Amino acid sequence: DFLNALREVVPAFGASTDDLERCRLGGMVDCGDRHKHIYQRAMLLVEQVKVSKGSPLVTCLLEGSSGSGKTALAATVGIDSDFPYVKIVSAETMIGLHESTKCSQIIKVFEDAYKSPLSVIILDDIERLLEYVAIGPRFSNLISQTLLVLLKRLPPKGKKLLVIGTTSQLIFLESIGFCDTFSVNYHVPTLNANDVKKVLQQLNVFAKDDVDAAAEALNDMPIKKLYTLIEMAAQGEQGGSAEAVYSGKEKINISHFYDCLQDVVRI
Amino acid sequence: DFLNALREVVPAFGASTDDLERCRLGGMVDCGDRHKHIYQRAMLLVEQVKVSKGSPLVTCLLEGSSGSGKTALAATVGIDSDFPYVKIVSAETMIGLHESTKCSQIIKVFEDAYKSPLSVIILDDIERLLEYVAIGPRFSNLISQTLLVLLKRLPPKGKKLLVIGTTSQLIFLESIGFCDTFSVNYHVPTLNANDVKKVLQQLNVFAKDDVDAAAEALNDMPIKKLYTLIEMAAQGEQGGSAEAVYSGKEKINISHFYDCLQDVVRI
Amino acid sequence: DFLNALREVVPAFGASTDDLERCRLGGMVDCGDRHKHIYQRAMLLVEQVKVSKGSPLVTCLLEGSSGSGKTALAATVGIDSDFPYVKIVSAETMIGLHESTKCSQIIKVFEDAYKSPLSVIILDDIERLLEYVAIGPRFSNLISQTLLVLLKRLPPKGKKLLVIGTTSQLIFLESIGFCDTFSVNYHVPTLNANDVKKVLQQLNVFAKDDVDAAAEALNDMPIKKLYTLIEMAAQGEQGGSAEAVYSGKEKINISHFYDCLQDVVRI
Amino acid sequence: DFLNALREVVPAFGASTDDLERCRLGGMVDCGDRHKHIYQRAMLLVEQVKVSKGSPLVTCLLEGSSGSGKTALAATVGIDSDFPYVKIVSAETMIGLHESTKCSQIIKVFEDAYKSPLSVIILDDIERLLEYVAIGPRFSNLISQTLLVLLKRLPPKGKKLLVIGTTSQLIFLESIGFCDTFSVNYHVPTLNANDVKKVLQQLNVFAKDDVDAAAEALNDMPIKKLYTLIEMAAQGEQGGSAEAVYSGKEKINISHFYDCLQDVVRI
Amino acid sequence: DFLNALREVVPAFGASTDDLERCRLGGMVDCGDRHKHIYQRAMLLVEQVKVSKGSPLVTCLLEGSSGSGKTALAATVGIDSDFPYVKIVSAETMIGLHESTKCSQIIKVFEDAYKSPLSVIILDDIERLLEYVAIGPRFSNLISQTLLVLLKRLPPKGKKLLVIGTTSQLIFLESIGFCDTFSVNYHVPTLNANDVKKVLQQLNVFAKDDVDAAAEALNDMPIKKLYTLIEMAAQGEQGGSAEAVYSGKEKINISHFYDCLQDVVRI
Amino acid sequence: DFLNALREVVPAFGASTDDLERCRLGGMVDCGDRHKHIYQRAMLLVEQVKVSKGSPLVTCLLEGSSGSGKTALAATVGIDSDFPYVKIVSAETMIGLHESTKCSQIIKVFEDAYKSPLSVIILDDIERLLEYVAIGPRFSNLISQTLLVLLKRLPPKGKKLLVIGTTSQLIFLESIGFCDTFSVNYHVPTLNANDVKKVLQQLNVFAKDDVDAAAEALNDMPIKKLYTLIEMAAQGEQGGSAEAVYSGKEKINISHFYDCLQDVVRI
Ligand SMILES: Nc1ncnc2c1ncn2[C@@H]1O[C@H](COP(=O)(O)OP(=O)(O)OP(=O)(O)O)[C@@H](O)[C@H]1O
Ligand SMILES: Nc1ncnc2c1ncn2[C@@H]1O[C@H](COP(=O)(O)OP(=O)(O)OP(=O)(O)O)[C@@H](O)[C@H]1O
Ligand SMILES: Nc1ncnc2c1ncn2[C@@H]1O[C@H](COP(=O)(O)OP(=O)(O)OP(=O)(O)O)[C@@H](O)[C@H]1O
Ligand SMILES: Nc1ncnc2c1ncn2[C@@H]1O[C@H](COP(=O)(O)OP(=O)(O)OP(=O)(O)O)[C@@H](O)[C@H]1O
Ligand SMILES: Nc1ncnc2c1ncn2[C@@H]1O[C@H](COP(=O)(O)OP(=O)(O)OP(=O)(O)O)[C@@H](O)[C@H]1O
Ligand SMILES: Nc1ncnc2c1ncn2[C@@H]1O[C@H](COP(=O)(O)OP(=O)(O)OP(=O)(O)O)[C@@H](O)[C@H]1O
Ligand SMILES: [Mg+2]
Ligand SMILES: [Mg+2]
Ligand SMILES: [Mg+2]
Ligand SMILES: [Mg+2]
Ligand SMILES: [Mg+2]
Ligand SMILES: [Mg+2]
Repeated sequence: DFLNALREVVPAFGASTDDLERCRLGGMVDCGDRHKHIYQRAMLLVEQVKVSKGSPLVTCLLEGSSGSGKTALAATVGIDSDFPYVKIVSAETMIGLHESTKCSQIIKVFEDAYKSPLSVIILDDIERLLEYVAIGPRFSNLISQTLLVLLKRLPPKGKKLLVIGTTSQLIFLESIGFCDTFSVNYHVPTLNANDVKKVLQQLNVFAKDDVDAAAEALNDMPIKKLYTLIEMAAQGEQGGSAEAVYSGKEKINISHFYDCLQDVVRI
Repeated sequence: DFLNALREVVPAFGASTDDLERCRLGGMVDCGDRHKHIYQRAMLLVEQVKVSKGSPLVTCLLEGSSGSGKTALAATVGIDSDFPYVKIVSAETMIGLHESTKCSQIIKVFEDAYKSPLSVIILDDIERLLEYVAIGPRFSNLISQTLLVLLKRLPPKGKKLLVIGTTSQLIFLESIGFCDTFSVNYHVPTLNANDVKKVLQQLNVFAKDDVDAAAEALNDMPIKKLYTLIEMAAQGEQGGSAEAVYSGKEKINISHFYDCLQDVVRI
Repeated sequence: DFLNALREVVPAFGASTDDLERCRLGGMVDCGDRHKHIYQRAMLLVEQVKVSKGSPLVTCLLEGSSGSGKTALAATVGIDSDFPYVKIVSAETMIGLHESTKCSQIIKVFEDAYKSPLSVIILDDIERLLEYVAIGPRFSNLISQTLLVLLKRLPPKGKKLLVIGTTSQLIFLESIGFCDTFSVNYHVPTLNANDVKKVLQQLNVFAKDDVDAAAEALNDMPIKKLYTLIEMAAQGEQGGSAEAVYSGKEKINISHFYDCLQDVVRI
Repeated sequence: DFLNALREVVPAFGASTDDLERCRLGGMVDCGDRHKHIYQRAMLLVEQVKVSKGSPLVTCLLEGSSGSGKTALAATVGIDSDFPYVKIVSAETMIGLHESTKCSQIIKVFEDAYKSPLSVIILDDIERLLEYVAIGPRFSNLISQTLLVLLKRLPPKGKKLLVIGTTSQLIFLESIGFCDTFSVNYHVPTLNANDVKKVLQQLNVFAKDDVDAAAEALNDMPIKKLYTLIEMAAQGEQGGSAEAVYSGKEKINISHFYDCLQDVVRI
Repeated sequence: DFLNALREVVPAFGASTDDLERCRLGGMVDCGDRHKHIYQRAMLLVEQVKVSKGSPLVTCLLEGSSGSGKTALAATVGIDSDFPYVKIVSAETMIGLHESTKCSQIIKVFEDAYKSPLSVIILDDIERLLEYVAIGPRFSNLISQTLLVLLKRLPPKGKKLLVIGTTSQLIFLESIGFCDTFSVNYHVPTLNANDVKKVLQQLNVFAKDDVDAAAEALNDMPIKKLYTLIEMAAQGEQGGSAEAVYSGKEKINISHFYDCLQDVVRI
Repeated sequence: DFLNALREVVPAFGASTDDLERCRLGGMVDCGDRHKHIYQRAMLLVEQVKVSKGSPLVTCLLEGSSGSGKTALAATVGIDSDFPYVKIVSAETMIGLHESTKCSQIIKVFEDAYKSPLSVIILDDIERLLEYVAIGPRFSNLISQTLLVLLKRLPPKGKKLLVIGTTSQLIFLESIGFCDTFSVNYHVPTLNANDVKKVLQQLNVFAKDDVDAAAEALNDMPIKKLYTLIEMAAQGEQGGSAEAVYSGKEKINISHFYDCLQDVVRI
C-alpha cells in the first residue's frame, strides 16, 4: 500500500540518497488519501518519462503551504523512481553564494542529468532558489531566467528527465510564469482532522480518549507544525517527561498540549 | 497540400537544420486552416524577400499563447525557405550568459546573415531573449535596444533578410514598441474543437466513438498541452498501457483521460 | 519644384553622403504640400545659419509617427545644404556599445563639426540614441544630459551649426525637456488620402480605376507602411507576380491588396 | 524562583559569556509574571533541544517594542542553558562591514555551532542584522536569504541547536516570512503599572508614598525608558543629587520626576 | 544708468572673463525695470560681501523660465563685481564626465575661491549640473549633496564669497531643499509687452508702425525666444533678406513674422 | 546667567575647539527662555554622564527648523562640558567622499571617544551625514545603519559618552527610527517676537522706536534668517551705509528693512 511504498528505501543510491533521506529524517507516516493520490500520480509521471518516446522532458510542481510535506514527498518519489540519476537542488547547499554561482551549479546539475538515460531533478523550495522576498518583491531574475529555460529545454536525443519542483509561494511563481512552464501542478494540502487522527494513531503519544479532541484541535495543520507541537507538549509543563512519552510509558497531558497549541498559534 | 508542405524536410542543410528540426521533434501534423493560412503568408514573405528590390529587410512576428506551435511553425518556414543561411536565435544556447554576451551573439548572427545573399533569422521566444519577467516588469534593456535597432537596420547592398520573431507575451512586446517594429504580425491560435478533431484523427489513440467527446473537451487547447495530456492518459490508470496505445493495440480510456484533464487544468 | 529639389543629389560628398543616401534608398517621391512646407522651412534654417551673425547654433526637431519619413527628410536637407560637414548620428552605428562609449562618439561628432565653418548634424531617432523604452520608462540619462548640453553649447567663434533631430516619441522627449531645447519643432505627418493618391500615381502599380479606392483605404498611413503594403500586394495571392507589376506589365489585384491591408492593420 | 534563576550567572563560560553579560549590565530585576512566563517557556525549549531525538533544530523569536528587555532575556536563557556553545550574533560587532562579509560571519557562527553537540545562537536585533530601514523599505536580501536558509537547515547528525531571535520590527519580519520560519514566537511586553511597581520597589529610589503615583505614570513603559528616566530624575533639578539618591540618602523629587517624564515623552 | 552699467565690460579680467562674456555674446540690451531691479539688488549683495564682517558667505538664486536671461544677468554681475576671482561653473565644460569627477571640479572651484579675499562663483543651470531629468525624477545625489554642503560651508577666516545660482527648474530645486539653502531668491521674468517694445526699439528691425503689434504678439516671451524669432523672420519668406534687415535697409515683413511666430509656438 | 554661561569659552581645548568655535562665529546672544531651557537640560545630561554608573551612554537629539541655532547650541554644550574629548562630526569635512569612507571616519571618531573617560560627540546635520534628499527619498543606508548601531553600542567599561545630534528633518529621522534611538529629543524653536526683541536690543542696529515694529515683523524667524536680513538692510538702499550702522553712527532705515524682508520671504 501507499505507506509501505513510501517507506521502502533504496539504499544502493550512494551519496545523493543521503541528501534525499535527510529530507524525511523521521521516516514517512500515512498522511491520508490526498497525499497518497499525489504520490501515485507522480509515480505515473516517472513511468511516463521511462516509456514515452514523445516526452523526453516532464515537469511537475508540488505547491502547498509551508511545512505541508512537499519536500519529503518529492524526495520519496525521487528515491522510489529507481532512476540512475536523482538529484536535489536546494538553497541549503548554495548558502551565501552569488547568484551567478548558483546559476552555474544549477546548470551543472541539468548537464549531469543529460548524461544519464533517466534522471529526476528536484528543485526544492523554488522561491528560496530564486532568493525571493515578498517586499518589493525581490528575487534573482538571473536564476529565474535560467530555470525558465531549463524547464523547457529538451534533453539530448535518448535522454529522459523528470523535474519536480516544490514551492510554498504559488502566487509568486504564477506571477512570474513558472506555473505555466511546469506541465502539471499538484497541491499538497495541510492535514484535515481525519488525516491528523491517522497520524496521531501512528505516533501513539496521546491517551486513546484524547486522540479525537487533539485531532479536532489540530485540524488544518501542516504536518511540520504538528510535529513541533507534539515535541513541545511531550516535555511536560515542568520539563523532563519527554523520554517517558516517547517510550510509551506516559501520554501527553492534554491540557498542557492545549497550552502549547496557544503558544504556537498565538501570533 | 499544407501538411505535405510542412512535412517536406530539406536535409541538405547541415548543422543549423538540426537546431530547426529539434523545434518540431515529433514531426508536423495538420492543425487546421488558421495555422495553414499563416504558413502560406509567411512563405509569401519568403518569396517577397527573394524577388523584391525595394525591401531587402522583411520582419514578421508570430504571437500566440504558450505552446500554440509558434516555434515549430517558424522553424518550418525557415527550413522550407531553402535560403542559404537560416539561423534560430534561442535563449537555450545562451543560458546563464551575461546580457552583453547575449547581445554580441545576437549581433554576430545578424552580421553572418549580412554575408549571405538570402537569410532567415528566427528570434525565438523574444521575451526570453529579453530576460523578461512580469514582476516589475524586468527585462534587459540592452538586448531590447539591440534588437530594436537590428530589426530596422537594412542589410548591405544586395543582401536580403527575413526575420521571424515568436512570442507569447504580446502585450509586453507591444508596450516596448516591438510590434510596430515588425512589418507584419500574425496570431497563432490555440486549437478549436474542429482543429483538435483533425489532430486526434491523425494521432489515432482514441476509440472512434470517443474522438468527438475528446475533441470537445480539448477545445481551445494549445497543441503542446494536448500532446502532454495524451501522453499522460496513455499510461493508463495503473501505468503500463502506453506501449499498447501507441502501437495501436489499445485505445485511451476516455474516463481516465477526463481525470488527467482535470489534473492539468485544475490550477 | 519641391520634388526636383528633393531628387537633386550632391555626389561630391564623400563617405558621409553614403550614410545619408542610405536613408532614402528608393529615392524621394512627392508626398504632398505638408511635407514640402517642412522641407522649405528647414532649408530657410540652413540659410539662416549661413548668413546670421547672432545665431551660430540653430536646432530643429522633426517629430512624427513611426515611418512618416522624418529620417529621409532630414537626410535630404543635410544633402541639399551643401555644407562642408554633414553627419548623421544614428543608433545603427553604435549597436551594443556601452552608454559612455556612445556619449564619446556623439561628443566627437560635435567636436568635428566645431572645426568646420558650416555643419549639419542629424540626431536620428533620438529616443533610440537615448536607449528609451516605454516600460519604466527607462533611458540613458548620461546620453540625455550630454545631448541637452550639446544642444545649448555655442560653437566656437566663427563656426556655425545646424542640428536636426528626429523622433517618433514626442511625448517622451517633451517630458525630459528636449522639445524646449530645440529652437523649432516640425510635425511630419502621415499621408492623407490626397497625399497617398499623389504617391500612388508616381508609383504606377494600380489600375487607373483602382487608385482612388486604394488611396482612400490608405488614408492616414505613414509612407513606410504604404511601401510595405504595396510590396506585399505586388507578389500576388500565389506569389510570382511581383516582377510583372514592377515592370508595369501587370497591376496589383485590388482585392488581394485589401487582404494584405487587413494582415498589416489587423493588430 | 524566577528572579534568582535570572541572577544566577555561569562564570565558567569564557569570552563568549562576556558578550552575553554585557547585554544585562545592570543585572536582572523581576519584571513581572509575563516576563517570567517567557523565560520559563524558553528554558523548556532548551530542555527540548537537549532530550529530543526528532527536533535537532528549534527556533524561537522574541519580539516586542524597543527597549522591552528582549536582548537581556535572550542572553539570560543563553547563559542559563549551560550549553557548551552559546553565541550572540549582533550588528555591533559587524559595524560598517559589507553585507557579504556579514553573511560569512553569520554562516561561520552556525558552522561552529554544528561542531558542538548542544548550541544556542542568539540572532540579536534581526532588523539591524538585515540593515532594515523603514523607508523603501530597504534591507539586505543577501543576509535575509542566508538567515532564512540557516533557520531551516538541520544541523548534522547528532548535533542540536536552539536559535533565539530578537526583533522590535515584527511586522517587517512577518512580511518577509521570518515569523513563519521560527517554530515559536513570544511577545515581550512593556511594563504595566504592576510590573513597574515591582521594579521601583527593587530599585528603591522613590519615597514610599511616591511609588504608586510614579508607577501609574510609568504604565506601559519599556524597561529601558524607565531606567533612562530614573537616571535623569536622580540628578535633581540643579544637578548634583545623583550620588545621594543611589546611596539611598535621598529620594527622587517626584515633581522633578514628572518634568523629566515630559521631556522624554514630549515627542 | 542700468543699460550703461550692463554694457560696461571689464577687459582686464583674463581667461575667466572670456567665459563670462560668452554668456552674453550679443551684448546686453535694456529689458525693462524688473530686470534692472534684480541687477541692482545683486550688486548690493556684492557690496555686502565686500564690507560685511558677519557674513563671509552670501548665496543668491536667480530662477526663471528657460531663456529668460538668467545666465547673462549672473555673468554681468560677476563681471561688474570687480572681484579678483570670478568663476562660472557650467555643465558645458564637464560634458560626459562621471559625477564624481564633476564633484571634484566643483570642489576645486570653491577651494580656489577660498584662496582669494573676494570671490564670485556662478553655479549656472543648477539642474544641469545635477544631471536632472524630470522622468523619475533622476539626478545626481552625489553632486547635490556636495553643493548643499558647499552652499553652507563658511570660507576660511578673512575670505569672502558670493555664490550666484541659476535655474529654470525652481520646483525641483525647492523639493530637494536648495531654495532654503540660498539666502536670497530672485525671479527673472519673461518680457511683458512693454519690455518687448523697449527691446524692439533698440534692435530697430521693424517698421515703426509694426513695433506695437509685434510687441503685443510677443508678450510674455523669454528674451531668447524673441531673438530666435527675429532671426528667422529676418531671412524673409524666400530667404536672402537678412543682410538688408540687419544693415537697416529693409524691415521685417510683419506677416511673415506672424508665420514664423506660429512655427515656433505651434507645439 | 545663561548668556554668560554661553559666552564663556574654554580656550585650552586645542584644535578641536576651533571647529566648535567656528559653529558660533559671531558669538552667542541671549535668544530667550526656550533656548535657555534646552541649554540647561543638555548640561544636566553632561552631568548625568559624568556621575552615573548605570548609563555610560546618553544620546540627545536637537531638532528644529533650518537656521534655528541647533549647531551653535550643540557646540556650546560641547565646549562647556569641559570633557577631555569633544568632537563634531560634520558633512563639511567629508565633502565628496564615498559613503563607505564617511562610515570609517565616523566609526573612527567613536573609537577615539571610547579611549577617553568622558566624551561628547556632536553628529551635526544628521540628514546631511546621511546624504538625505527628499526626492525618492534617497539617503545612505550604509551610514544610517552605522549610526543606528553606534547610537546603541555601549562604550567599554569605565568610559562614558554623550552624543548630541542635530537635524532640521525631524519627520525623515523619525521615519527611519532615529528619534526612538536617541534617549531624549529637544525642539529648538524659531524666535517669537519677544525673543527677537531681546536679540535686536543686544544688536542695537535699529532706532529705539523701530525695535518693536521690527520685532513684530520678524516674528517666527530662525535666528540665521534674522542675521542675514539685518546684514542686507544695513547696506542701505544705495549701499555704503553698513560701516556706519555697525559702528553705531547710523540706524537701519526701517522702510528699506521692510523691502529687504520682502525680498527674503517672497518665495
Ligand atoms: N508523510 C510524512 N511522514 C512523516 N513525516 C513527514 C511526512 N511528510 C513530511 N514529514 C516531515 O514533516 C516536516 C516537514 O516536511 P517537509 O519539509 O517535506 O515540508 P515542506 O512542505 O517541504 O515544508 P517547507 O514549505 O517548509 O519546505 C519534515 O520534518 C518532514 O520530515
Ligand atoms: N503542427 C504541429 N504538429 C505536430 N506537433 C506540433 C505542431 N506544432 C507544434 N507542435 C509541437 O507542439 C509543441 C509546442 O510547439 P512549439 O514549441 O512550437 O510551441 P510554441 O508556441 O513555440 O510554445 P512556447 O510558447 O512555449 O514557445 C512542440 O513539441 C512541437 O513539436
Ligand atoms: N518622400 C519620400 N519618397 C520616397 N520614399 C520615402 C520618402 N520619405 C520616406 N521614404 C521612405 O519611407 C521609409 C520610411 O522613411 P523614414 O525612415 O525616413 O521614416 P521615419 O519617419 O524616419 O521612420 P522611423 O520613425 O521608423 O525612424 C524609408 O524606406 C524611406 O526611404
Ligand atoms: N529584567 C531586567 N532587569 C534589569 N534590567 C533589565 C532587565 N531587562 C532589561 N534590562 C535592561 O534594560 C535595557 C534594555 O534591555 P534590552 O536591551 O534587553 O532591551 P531590548 O528589548 O533588547 O531593546 P532593543 O529593542 O533596543 O534591542 C538594558 O540596559 C538592559 O540591561
Ligand atoms: N539683457 C539682454 N540683452 C541682450 N541679450 C540678452 C539679454 N539677456 C539675455 N540675452 C541673450 O538671450 C539669450 C538667453 O539668455 P540666457 O542664456 O542668459 O538665458 P537663461 O535664462 O540663462 O536661459 P536658460 O534657462 O536656457 O539657461 C542669450 O543669447 C543671451 O545672450
Ligand atoms: N544664540 C546665538 N547667538 C548668536 N548667534 C547665533 C546664536 N545661535 C545661532 N547663531 C548663529 O545663527 C546662525 C545659524 O545657527 P546654526 O548654524 O547653529 O543653526 P542651525 O539650526 O544649526 O542651522 P541649520 O539647520 O542650517 O544647520 C549661525 O551663524 C550661528 O552662529
Ligand atoms: Mg520544503
Ligand atoms: Mg516557442
Ligand atoms: Mg527614422
Ligand atoms: Mg535588543
Ligand atoms: Mg542659463
Ligand atoms: Mg546646523
